[in-house]
Amino acid sequence: MSTLRGRASPDLILNAAVLGVGMHPGAWRLRREPPATAFTPAYFRRIGELAEAACLHAVFLADTLSVDEENYERPNLGAVDPLLALTLIAGATEHVGLVATASTTFSEPFGLARRFASLDHLSGGRAAWNVVTTFVPAVAANFGSAPLPAPADRYRRAEEFVDVVQALWRSWQADALIGDQESGHYAEATRVKRLNHHGEFFDVAGPLTLPPSPQGEPVLFQAGSSEAGRGLAARTADAVFTAQNTLVAAQAFRRDMRSRVAAAGRDPDRFKVLPGLLAVLGGTEAEARARKARLDELAGDAERRKLALRLGVPVELLQLDAPLPVDAVLANPAFKGAEGFRQAALELGVREGLTVREILYRNGGGHVQVVGTPEQVADHIAHWHREGAVDGFNLMIDVLPDGLEDLVEQVVPLLQRRGLFRDEYAGRTLRANLGLHSQP
Amino acid sequence: MSTLRGRASPDLILNAAVLGVGMHPGAWRLRREPPATAFTPAYFRRIGELAEAACLHAVFLADTLSVDEENYERPNLGAVDPLLALTLIAGATEHVGLVATASTTFSEPFGLARRFASLDHLSGGRAAWNVVTTFVPAVAANFGSAPLPAPADRYRRAEEFVDVVQALWRSWQADALIGDQESGHYAEATRVKRLNHHGEFFDVAGPLTLPPSPQGEPVLFQAGSSEAGRGLAARTADAVFTAQNTLVAAQAFRRDMRSRVAAAGRDPDRFKVLPGLLAVLGGTEAEARARKARLDELAGDAERRKLALRLGVPVELLQLDAPLPVDAVLANPAFKGAEGFRQAALELGVREGLTVREILYRNGGGHVQVVGTPEQVADHIAHWHREGAVDGFNLMIDVLPDGLEDLVEQVVPLLQRRGLFRDEYAGRTLRANLGLHSQP
Repeated sequence: MSTLRGRASPDLILNAAVLGVGMHPGAWRLRREPPATAFTPAYFRRIGELAEAACLHAVFLADTLSVDEENYERPNLGAVDPLLALTLIAGATEHVGLVATASTTFSEPFGLARRFASLDHLSGGRAAWNVVTTFVPAVAANFGSAPLPAPADRYRRAEEFVDVVQALWRSWQADALIGDQESGHYAEATRVKRLNHHGEFFDVAGPLTLPPSPQGEPVLFQAGSSEAGRGLAARTADAVFTAQNTLVAAQAFRRDMRSRVAAAGRDPDRFKVLPGLLAVLGGTEAEARARKARLDELAGDAERRKLALRLGVPVELLQLDAPLPVDAVLANPAFKGAEGFRQAALELGVREGLTVREILYRNGGGHVQVVGTPEQVADHIAHWHREGAVDGFNLMIDVLPDGLEDLVEQVVPLLQRRGLFRDEYAGRTLRANLGLHSQP
Repeated sequence: MSTLRGRASPDLILNAAVLGVGMHPGAWRLRREPPATAFTPAYFRRIGELAEAACLHAVFLADTLSVDEENYERPNLGAVDPLLALTLIAGATEHVGLVATASTTFSEPFGLARRFASLDHLSGGRAAWNVVTTFVPAVAANFGSAPLPAPADRYRRAEEFVDVVQALWRSWQADALIGDQESGHYAEATRVKRLNHHGEFFDVAGPLTLPPSPQGEPVLFQAGSSEAGRGLAARTADAVFTAQNTLVAAQAFRRDMRSRVAAAGRDPDRFKVLPGLLAVLGGTEAEARARKARLDELAGDAERRKLALRLGVPVELLQLDAPLPVDAVLANPAFKGAEGFRQAALELGVREGLTVREILYRNGGGHVQVVGTPEQVADHIAHWHREGAVDGFNLMIDVLPDGLEDLVEQVVPLLQRRGLFRDEYAGRTLRANLGLHSQP
C-alpha cells in the first residue's frame, strides 16, 4: 500500500506560526521592541514580509479568546483577532498564505464562513482556516454561562460547524456569477444554492454573500490529534497541525492520518501532516543553549505550569527532576484539554522515560523543540521529512520577530541549498502552493 | 438653551458611505469595471485612497448579512465583511477613519469587541463601530431558526450589547500595560478589570484581550432613528447616522438628539448628527438628470421595491403617479423595518404630498437625494449645515468608485474654497478628527 506508507511529498512545507510575540513565555522580555509594538500594523507587516521573502508557505496565527491571571504576567496569544491581522498582512504581501485559527465552540458558522471567504478574496486566494475546538476553560466565560464543553461535545459541534461552513463556501457555483452589465444578468439563480441546513447545533439558510475566490474556497487546517480530531481532519481538512515529540510517534501519526484520509475516499497525497517544531537557534550549540536558558530564566515557572495545563494535572505534581507522574495524568477522566498535547508529552515521559526537566527541554510548549545551530535545525527538518514523518512543519518561533528573522536567514537557505525547499512560489494561491487541488 | 439650539459645529464632517458597488440598485451595470472587481483588494484600496486624498473623515461601510432573490439580480451590500475590508484599507492609508457596520442582533459582544479593538490598533486609532439591529428578515435565517425579532426586542438586546462592548473596551485602564521587560512586570493586574457581566442576553467575564488603542477605544456610531434608536444613540454613541429627507425634519431631529444627549449628562457639542445624502452628479443639471434616468432604467423596478420594503407595504400598493398610501403604511402594526427610513419617506408623502415617483426622485434609497451639479450638491451641504440641521453627511455614493471620484474631485474642492471643509487632517485619530474627546 505505497500510498499509505508515508511517501514523502515532493515539496517540503514550512509555515511561520505566530503566537503573540513568540512561543516561549519569556519571549516578551527578550524582544528588542517594547511589548505594545505587538499590536501595531508594523509588527504584522514585518512578519508577513519576512515569511514571504523566504517563500514560506504561510503565516499561521494562533488564537486565544481570553486573558487570565497568567496573562497579566505576559502577552496573551490571541490579543489581536487573527483574521484582521492576516488581512493587514494580505495587503502587504503577494504570495504568502494566511492561516487563521478560529474556534468552532465560540463562534457561529455564517459569520465565520463570510469572514474567511472575505480574507480569501482580499488576499487573492491565500486564506486558510485552522479549525480548533478550544481547550482553554477561561474562554468559555467570555461567551456565556456554561463551562467549557467536554471534548466529545466540542467535536460533535465542530463536525456540523465545518460542514455548514464548507457548504456555504460552495453555495455559489464557480460559474454562478454572470455579471453581464449589458443584459443585466448578474447571477444565475439556479447555480446559487440555499443550504436550508437544520442540524443539532445550527440552522442556516444560506447562501453565502460571496462567490468562490481565486482558489475556490479557503484551505482547511485542523488542529487536534485526539481520535475525534483525527476523524474530523480526515473527513474534511486539507492539512492537520499536530504536536509530535518523537520521530516514531510522528511516523505513526502520519501513517494513521493517510490511512484515514484514504478510507474517507480522499487522496492522501493531497493531505498534509504538519507538526509544530520550535527552534531555539544559536551560532553554536552552546549559544543556542544559552538563549534557551536565558528565556527559561525570564519566563519563571511558566513552562512548567503550561505543561501541567496540557497534562491536566496540578502543577505541584510536576517535580523538575522526577519522572512524569504518569498515573496521575492517566487517572484524570474529566480531562478537557488537547489530547494531542497530552499524548506528545506522555510519549516522552513513558516511552523515553524522561524527567519533567528533560521533557521541558525537548517539548517546547507542547511541540518538539530543537535547541541548536541552523545546521542542526535543518538536519532535524530534513531527517523527519526524509523518514516520512511529516509533509512539513509549522515553525513555532521562540521570539518574534527576531526568531523568524534568524530562521529565514539561517535555516531556510540551508534547506534551499540542499534542494529540500523551494526558492520561489509554485502558484498564485495557497492551495496551489501547498500542492492541493486547485479547486475543491 | 444655546447648546441645544443646533449650533453648527465648526467643522463640517463628511464620510464616504460604501454600499456594495454603489447606493443605486443600477450601479453595477453603469460601472466601468466588471462586478467581480468589487471583491478585490484593489477596489477597497482605491476607495480608501480617494477618501483620504480628499481629507474625508471616514470610509463608512454598510453591511447586509444575507443574499436573497433580489441579490441574484445585483450585488448585495455586505458581500465582503466590513471589518476585513476596512483592515485592508487601514494598511493602504494613514489618516482616514474606518467605520464598520455590525449587527447586535446577529453577533455576540466578546468577539465583536475584539474585532473592533483589533481594527482600532491595526489602524493606529481610526476605527468606529456603526451599531445596527438589522431590519432585513432574510438575515435571521442565516443565524438560527427564529424569525427576525421585533424592533423593541432588538433594541433591548442592543442596549445590553453596547454596554458590554464598551465595558470590554474599557477593561484595561490606559496605564495597565506596564511592559517592563527588565523587571518582568507586564501588566498591572489591579488596573485590568473583569466585567463578570450577567444580563438578560449575555454572560461575559472579560477582560478584553487588548489594552486601549491610540484613540482609547473605537468611536461609536448608531444607525437608527426610531424612539429606541435615538435613546441608544443619546446614551452611548458619539454620532448618529440617520435618514432625513427635509431640512425641517433634519433640524428637528438634530435638536431632539442634542437635547437627549444633554439629558443623558453628555456634551451635545461632542455628539454628531450625520444624515445620509445621495448625490447624483452631472456637469449640468440636465446631465445629472440623465445619469439618474439611466441608473433608474438599468435598475428596473428595484427602487420602488426597496421603498416598499422600507415602508412595510406590498410593492403593488405603490403606484408611481399616485400619492403615497399613507393609511396602509401606518396601519401595519407588525412593522419590523427601520422606523427612520419609514418616517423619512412619510415626511415626503404626508407633509409635502409627493407622489411615489416624486418621492423616489427625492429619496435615494431612503436618504435625501440631490440630482445636480457639483455646485448644487455643495449648496445643499452648506445650506443644511448652516441651518443647524446637520454636523455633516454620510455621502451615499450612487456608483463606486467613480461616483466617489466625482465627489472628491468636484464637490469637496468647492466646499474647501468656501472655507467649509478642511484640507488637512486635524489629528492622528478618528476621534480627534471628529472633534470628540481624545479619550472616552
